[in-house]
Amino acid sequence: MKVVVVGGVAGGASAATRIRRLNEHAEIVVLERDDYVSFANCGLPYHIGGEIRERSALLLQTPESLKADLNLDVRTGHEVMEIDRVTRCVAVVERATGRGYRESYDKLVLAQGAAPIRPGIPGVDHPRVYVLRNIPDMDAIKATVDGGARSVVVVGGGYIGIEVAEALEHRGLTVTLVEMTDQVIPPLDHEMARDLQYHVEAHGVTVHLGTAATAVREEDGQLIVELSNGRRIHGDMVVLAAGVMPESTLARRAGLELGSRQGVRVNPYMQTSDPDIYAVGDAVETTDRVSGLTALVPLAGPANRQGRIAADHICGRPSRYRGTLGTAIVKVFEMSGGGTGASEKILRQLRRPYRKVYLHPSGHASYYPGTAPMQVKLLFAPEDGKLLGAQVVGYDGVDKRLDVFATAIGAGMTVFDLEHLELSYAPPYGSAKDPVNMAGFIAANVLRGDLNLWYAEDYPEETRDGVIVDVRSVVEYEKWHIPGAIHIPLRQLRQRHDEIPREAPVFLYCRVGFRSYLAYRMLVQLGFEQISTLAGGSKTFMSYHRTELSDGRPGVSFVAYAEEELARTPQGLEHA
Amino acid sequence: MKVVVVGGVAGGASAATRIRRLNEHAEIVVLERDDYVSFANCGLPYHIGGEIRERSALLLQTPESLKADLNLDVRTGHEVMEIDRVTRCVAVVERATGRGYRESYDKLVLAQGAAPIRPGIPGVDHPRVYVLRNIPDMDAIKATVDGGARSVVVVGGGYIGIEVAEALEHRGLTVTLVEMTDQVIPPLDHEMARDLQYHVEAHGVTVHLGTAATAVREEDGQLIVELSNGRRIHGDMVVLAAGVMPESTLARRAGLELGSRQGVRVNPYMQTSDPDIYAVGDAVETTDRVSGLTALVPLAGPANRQGRIAADHICGRPSRYRGTLGTAIVKVFEMSGGGTGASEKILRQLRRPYRKVYLHPSGHASYYPGTAPMQVKLLFAPEDGKLLGAQVVGYDGVDKRLDVFATAIGAGMTVFDLEHLELSYAPPYGSAKDPVNMAGFIAANVLRGDLNLWYAEDYPEETRDGVIVDVRSVVEYEKWHIPGAIHIPLRQLRQRHDEIPREAPVFLYCRVGFRSYLAYRMLVQLGFEQISTLAGGSKTFMSYHRTELSDGRPGVSFVAYAEEELARTPQGLEHA
Repeated sequence: MKVVVVGGVAGGASAATRIRRLNEHAEIVVLERDDYVSFANCGLPYHIGGEIRERSALLLQTPESLKADLNLDVRTGHEVMEIDRVTRCVAVVERATGRGYRESYDKLVLAQGAAPIRPGIPGVDHPRVYVLRNIPDMDAIKATVDGGARSVVVVGGGYIGIEVAEALEHRGLTVTLVEMTDQVIPPLDHEMARDLQYHVEAHGVTVHLGTAATAVREEDGQLIVELSNGRRIHGDMVVLAAGVMPESTLARRAGLELGSRQGVRVNPYMQTSDPDIYAVGDAVETTDRVSGLTALVPLAGPANRQGRIAADHICGRPSRYRGTLGTAIVKVFEMSGGGTGASEKILRQLRRPYRKVYLHPSGHASYYPGTAPMQVKLLFAPEDGKLLGAQVVGYDGVDKRLDVFATAIGAGMTVFDLEHLELSYAPPYGSAKDPVNMAGFIAANVLRGDLNLWYAEDYPEETRDGVIVDVRSVVEYEKWHIPGAIHIPLRQLRQRHDEIPREAPVFLYCRVGFRSYLAYRMLVQLGFEQISTLAGGSKTFMSYHRTELSDGRPGVSFVAYAEEELARTPQGLEHA
Repeated sequence: MKVVVVGGVAGGASAATRIRRLNEHAEIVVLERDDYVSFANCGLPYHIGGEIRERSALLLQTPESLKADLNLDVRTGHEVMEIDRVTRCVAVVERATGRGYRESYDKLVLAQGAAPIRPGIPGVDHPRVYVLRNIPDMDAIKATVDGGARSVVVVGGGYIGIEVAEALEHRGLTVTLVEMTDQVIPPLDHEMARDLQYHVEAHGVTVHLGTAATAVREEDGQLIVELSNGRRIHGDMVVLAAGVMPESTLARRAGLELGSRQGVRVNPYMQTSDPDIYAVGDAVETTDRVSGLTALVPLAGPANRQGRIAADHICGRPSRYRGTLGTAIVKVFEMSGGGTGASEKILRQLRRPYRKVYLHPSGHASYYPGTAPMQVKLLFAPEDGKLLGAQVVGYDGVDKRLDVFATAIGAGMTVFDLEHLELSYAPPYGSAKDPVNMAGFIAANVLRGDLNLWYAEDYPEETRDGVIVDVRSVVEYEKWHIPGAIHIPLRQLRQRHDEIPREAPVFLYCRVGFRSYLAYRMLVQLGFEQISTLAGGSKTFMSYHRTELSDGRPGVSFVAYAEEELARTPQGLEHA
């Protein structure tokens, strides 16, 4: 058997190496257009930023090492121009020499990845307008920084844009970030992304939201990026991080079916519409496990897994790809944020029924140093509590909770199952009631009817005819409160509940939802019927409405400010 | 309804507060024998050690705060002496005054916890022989250290013993740790605990294994602990951390059923044999979810959850406790270690069939700074791959993988499900193929027949009639190798496999199992039939056989030494 793999990074390298492990006798040819194979593409921003000091650390394998260890025939600088499905050959050009040749295959694996989008605006091809996809891109950006660039405009506020902004801020550049939507990290819901934005800003990055680059011009040696809102941003360089497009041209030209989003269409074995041709990684469309929609998921984990599955099937094994949850995370200076499963905006688009809860537990026991509150958003089905999606933003332990949620969603768990998870606890790691358990408790309370929530987005329309009751402390109320709220601290509520009108809807809130939950449980049993408590408290309210007082803003004071709240949510007394 | 709760810490506090949230009108009395309620018992070692500077940080609630927030009647210093089940009363003594009184109940919750075992040896009651259960214990230990104690003997090498040893080492004491079994952290399998022991020793703690304290004597102001192996250890103080016993005397005297391990017997609603009396926390016996055996689980997480479930049932809700996985973790200086589900030693005791794999992946992408290899052991059912247990030891990301395993076991997942988990990946957090995925890949390879393992314990008996082949580098082989092993580096194996006899069993190994896996796959396809590869490689072999070269010993050089290996396991090329 002869297998040709087109593309030698994540998915392609996984496929090639797995095929060898399953078949010592196969002839395996890897054709990589660029000069590097199996490099650490997710590490590129961190070499620019200096965290990864040695460039060589990113170059994990060479054609020679892959030959020596696995007897792979890896050819870098060889580009596949065409697929001849009838004769089962690919037409190849050796880029250095221009020499063309044909390579036959029994099975072909396409693993060409996705290409950064270069918006069709004037000046986008200026030599100091960069993208960051591969080692030469990284080298070029780094050389420009090493050469004395002092400022940069990063176009795109998604995962890559944020990583590049952080890297260049680390290098001392003045960084401006431009994002077309009204938030950073568009895969997250906007209220979850808010603290990440403030954190980026607190590190000195200027963020422009809701505006797009319309042109790049050079003036006196500087680049000027013109924005759709009329602003003009100066920079010594520009990095485009405005998303990626699947590299499906070769597949399309060969007559392979593409999906609606221009990704290569594959079955669960990663076969294209030609059963001898497989496709894996960023170039394919897969199925989202929660929404059932086709999805483009340019992430390393799925790419590697797909490569392995294609290899299995080529070698006669029935492995199937189960679809994706789109689990992703990004480091944003000292913060981390990410999600798994569906976001609220996706569920809304799908018109799929859902419920949601917010909470702000600490990353580990609040009395043990080195933690801060995190924000957790959990989305679940109203009928049975099945988990639909989760987002987590914070400082310590964000990745852990995301992974537990991803595992739970992958297992088809419900919010009731989260209540029972038995996670590892010691004060440096978590709490006796872990944030994941807490999310389950609160969500289960909602579904069991023990907790009735109102949401930040209900203000002001939905709350207009009711009374908003702030049950926080005097100090908190005086610092800021929701306009129009009356104030009865929790500890006075048993004495003063007569001050709350019973004929109007009552909208309770506190800072994170714990004290208002206690108030809610008390009042509901005292006969209040139209009553609800603010999901996520004023913390989520502020993030949602982008008030100036949202305290995600400065990393350090965020922690300090949170201490008062944390001191009130000890073991045995948390929410739920 | 009137509820009396006996014990006001984890389980008792959870029950009392949840009952209030569900029932504003209930009369709730909490009777706590000691002077503190709802304190952070898991934080005690860390205040002694100085990480938690403020003692007040541990005192999360007071009777006054619980009255103000939740209208609970909390009485500290009130000890329940007797339960009269006929009249539904408890007999109480106010310890400060000696005043006795009776308190009636409709429902009673016993949450008395577990008491440190004081072995019945001479001298155990010496005033400088301490245990660490509560705030006064902590105060006493801390006062002795503050008063100038320079050395300590810690009896017991489990979770608490290790935490106390670390705390007192932080305070500058000379620490000797004595453990009766042949390993630290007895809930782990011994080969998994080995690096933790070396790490403790590298921090200057002297560890005596396989020996017990037989007497404590005072001599010239110093304490002398006599050991069963004849040794005598000097110390200014002794801390007993030799396990705990459920506090079930009150229940037993009231005629409530106990289990075989002296814990209070309860049903899934946490009811004792008297349906009006509930019991929760360290004092009860629960069911181990993997083994099905009754278990005593003195952990905060289960205690809190059980308190909540008892509250639910008292208030008419059908919550059920699902049993325990015994998920636990301990911080050991810079390392972390823990487990979830069944250990191998438990499975052996049960004579339950199992398979196991070991791996040593890095905590996050090896090219991103701040990581080190972790050790993972996964236990699973031979017939269907159902997960039975997992243990993880290492530096970064240990708690995360434990929690993912715990969630997966809780969901009833198999090793095949682990292959498909889609976990959050960016270089600071993990790898495109996460350690959990890798564990699944390797285990699935075993069950699918793609990988045949031999184990450290097979040496030397099982390997005697075969040939051991070391496929590591020349440098590695010359530094140390399994006695009797021949040496053919992986990269020479395609040329030199004729040197391996085909008629005898072949036992391959490398350092962590990756290169020997490649060798295995090659040789098996070249017709070798009696061939296997060492699970976990020489790393696990060394831990198992306790060779002096086991490189868990010094934390820092462990990381450095591992770099060579990590450099060989890049993205797309890992195991499996």
